[in-house]
Amino acid sequence: MTVSEADARTQRIRTTVHAYLDAVAAGVAADIAALYADDATLEDPAGSEPRVGRAAITEFYKGVEATENTTELLTLRIAGSTAAFHFRVVTKAGEQTYEIEPIDVMTFDDEGRITSMRAVWAPSDMRVR
Amino acid sequence: MTVSEADARTQRIRTTVHAYLDAVAAGVAADIAALYADDATLEDPAGSEPRVGRAAITEFYKGVEATENTTELLTLRIAGSTAAFHFRVVTKAGEQTYEIEPIDVMTFDDEGRITSMRAVWAPSDMRVR
Repeated sequence: MTVSEADARTQRIRTTVHAYLDAVAAGVAADIAALYADDATLEDPAGSEPRVGRAAITEFYKGVEATENTTELLTLRIAGSTAAFHFRVVTKAGEQTYEIEPIDVMTFDDEGRITSMRAVWAPSDMRVR
Repeated sequence: MTVSEADARTQRIRTTVHAYLDAVAAGVAADIAALYADDATLEDPAGSEPRVGRAAITEFYKGVEATENTTELLTLRIAGSTAAFHFRVVTKAGEQTYEIEPIDVMTFDDEGRITSMRAVWAPSDMRVR
């Protein structure tokens, strides 16, 4: 891989991460899942049973359709085909507002689609506003 | 695994991450490598050829023996047997001082030893002070 090919890959990954956070905030499960490769895996939180494939991943994101979310990227690091990013999600569910700042770890294919996602956070990281 | 077993695991991982950053700052390669399991893997940066096993990992950290480093934990997230943490390393090498804030992703065995490490950062993230 040449330097410019590597730069282009990094740029594709960066674009997908931003699109991911925008899609989570917009809250349409199918649109979020469309950023994943067909046979991608999702572990949220890391260590839980992985969800495999687009249908299972879409199902997972149905949860965000019932809530109002805003997202903010805090720190993004990219190396090779891996991204790790620290971000804030503020969730309004009924009268309650929750805030959490996970670190997600994603890998990507050559088209910049997410091939795996592992969300690193614990319930104790969640704050009620 | 009971809740208290899970809490104990989280605490062991937290202790190892702090010990890791302290050991990197202290700068003795063998002491850093001692925090890894015997057959651990290390990818720094993520996507590079993994170093496998204690000897190769010790060799990797010889680099920190030639420089003066300070470390600071910025954010630590733990889920199951995975930790992701954002930290700052300030390195003095001769007259130059460099600063970088990677996100490292580690997995751990039941004794809290590191079984894999992937450092997510790019040369462009490095700043000269």
